[in-house]
Amino acid sequence: MNFGIDDLPVRDELRGKSPYGAPQLDVPVRLNTNENPYPLPEPLVERIAERVREAARDLNRYPDRDAVELRTQLAKYLTDTSGYAVGLANVWAANGSNEVIQQLLQTFGGPGRTAIGFEPSYSMHGLIARGTGTGWISGPRNDDFTIDLAAAERAVAEHRPDVVFVTTPNNPTGTAVPAGTVLALYEAAQAAKPSMVVVDEAYIEFSHGESLLPLLEGRPNLVVSRTMSKAFGAAGLRLGYLAAHPAVVDAVQLVRLPYHLSAVTQATALAALEHTDTLLKYVEQLKAERDRLVDELLAIGYEVTPSDANFVQFGRFADAHEVWQRILDRGVLVRDNGVPGWLRVTAGTPEENDAFLDAVREVKKEKDV
Amino acid sequence: MNFGIDDLPVRDELRGKSPYGAPQLDVPVRLNTNENPYPLPEPLVERIAERVREAARDLNRYPDRDAVELRTQLAKYLTDTSGYAVGLANVWAANGSNEVIQQLLQTFGGPGRTAIGFEPSYSMHGLIARGTGTGWISGPRNDDFTIDLAAAERAVAEHRPDVVFVTTPNNPTGTAVPAGTVLALYEAAQAAKPSMVVVDEAYIEFSHGESLLPLLEGRPNLVVSRTMSKAFGAAGLRLGYLAAHPAVVDAVQLVRLPYHLSAVTQATALAALEHTDTLLKYVEQLKAERDRLVDELLAIGYEVTPSDANFVQFGRFADAHEVWQRILDRGVLVRDNGVPGWLRVTAGTPEENDAFLDAVREVKKEKDV
Repeated sequence: MNFGIDDLPVRDELRGKSPYGAPQLDVPVRLNTNENPYPLPEPLVERIAERVREAARDLNRYPDRDAVELRTQLAKYLTDTSGYAVGLANVWAANGSNEVIQQLLQTFGGPGRTAIGFEPSYSMHGLIARGTGTGWISGPRNDDFTIDLAAAERAVAEHRPDVVFVTTPNNPTGTAVPAGTVLALYEAAQAAKPSMVVVDEAYIEFSHGESLLPLLEGRPNLVVSRTMSKAFGAAGLRLGYLAAHPAVVDAVQLVRLPYHLSAVTQATALAALEHTDTLLKYVEQLKAERDRLVDELLAIGYEVTPSDANFVQFGRFADAHEVWQRILDRGVLVRDNGVPGWLRVTAGTPEENDAFLDAVREVKKEKDV
Repeated sequence: MNFGIDDLPVRDELRGKSPYGAPQLDVPVRLNTNENPYPLPEPLVERIAERVREAARDLNRYPDRDAVELRTQLAKYLTDTSGYAVGLANVWAANGSNEVIQQLLQTFGGPGRTAIGFEPSYSMHGLIARGTGTGWISGPRNDDFTIDLAAAERAVAEHRPDVVFVTTPNNPTGTAVPAGTVLALYEAAQAAKPSMVVVDEAYIEFSHGESLLPLLEGRPNLVVSRTMSKAFGAAGLRLGYLAAHPAVVDAVQLVRLPYHLSAVTQATALAALEHTDTLLKYVEQLKAERDRLVDELLAIGYEVTPSDANFVQFGRFADAHEVWQRILDRGVLVRDNGVPGWLRVTAGTPEENDAFLDAVREVKKEKDV
């Protein structure tokens, strides 16, 4: 009776699929989507209103198609925080790092081409590959979720992918990837065929280590992607960006939708960048809370994957989903990413983290699952 | 020496291409991109600042992934202005109608599939087809830029496209497509194979006729796409949307990037929708100016394509680009869309249109080109 998706002439590979997205449940403590728990400070909120008011007076005109001011300020931020100098010509921005990745796959992947990621990792890499007609190869990881370099190099040599994704710190495991591993993978990828290596640094500001931006030097087929969703506390803004050789920035403009980045998005992002110092102080607080979560989870008796991100993967459970439900029953929403035996919790405010820790202490005392 | 795009492993079909986009030149009168010349009224600017301030207080959280409030208000606008009732379940929104079209092609086009448009028409249809790996078929038009229905039906029967684009009013010609033509094309398309028909109504508010929204009744494979860039005077906002059977709205969510629509975009669009009545008064002024442009261009001795949009196609010229340059030399930027013999001018303010008309009067007196 009901006319549904499968009655439409949708692509075969979409039949029976569900939209990506974490359950959006109305619970007191939401630690499931790696959001920054700290609202933007009020002076920044006012600055956003001010900048958007100014932009709105010209809203009948198309936005700056090349987002020159925004890319210049993003480049300055990267330079200031990494010590590696990049400029306007090295930086590109889009509606969330998802759109950055989509543009990269439209440019360097697509029909007849393949991309590889080392899983479990950020599942959107594979989903955007599917959405762009790019073949997806699931590469291996060690049992401790580090990248098995030898196995990864073999996979690259065997499949000769056009795009190699390396997520560091990795989501959902929190695992940092050493620069040496990325360098080796870059060499292995180039040896197999000319190909792009995309280092997804969405969570790099929370890392104990350094950004891999300096690896861009002399490596035109390397891309580092970033987002303002996490460290800048602006998930609602949808602002992702990349740094790479200027030729890469030129190339993605062949597939970007013209005027893809609205004037209000550009204005809001520029306001947030003016407040970088304040926002990075929140990052320091979250790193301390992340480390506290690791310590407490270990003390409770859970296993924990070492984390360089604003979240912690913990386990192991015979039935992770059942544990997820039991935590949810106590008013705390964490994430079941489908990694067998493991769950992921975002570092929230101290109060939210306490609520989470209380919940998992209780769960621990119950019959094991 | 210089490492450029073609030194990267970009897709073959991108080699040698240039990014899409009108030249952005700094001239006194810009009538080249069909922008609404009227800035948003100041009370709306203030309301945008207010709504964005509110949204910014929650910006650390992801936006409403389903944009429920915005889609509800867009549905109300469509219902109020067309008399055909649509609701939340019928409406989807994205970053500009370009992203709407991209999502439709990712869902219903893509590798191994084809789309057809009747050209000259909105060139992004073909470019987004390329970007999504969809084969592009250039369908015919009559010499007067109306759709040759018999020829269009033959093209559909021959090529059996998966997606059929009908732009009404058509860009860059301004030509409205009668409902009967769209209905016949829908039937021809379904007879060839199950396929989607996308009616691009970006400029419909400027038409002498009515929206084709009522054709959605009983036709689940029909989609009507819209934008807030033109009638709402919000090109800088990048807000496109579609109306269709709820199954279509469900289907595009299989390919949409999660949280694609930022909280500031949603807030700004909602503010603009509160001021619909005021903005539609500007539309009436622009329709009168568009009609004046037609009359004056004819009086000067040019040929004009009948226009239902906020722009006018005029000619004919042995060398349209040379005429474009001569008009530009007089401080007025119009658009050379590459339609041999014709140029396109956007209806601006009365003063801008006067400046344009003065310029083309002068050009007319020069040696013919």
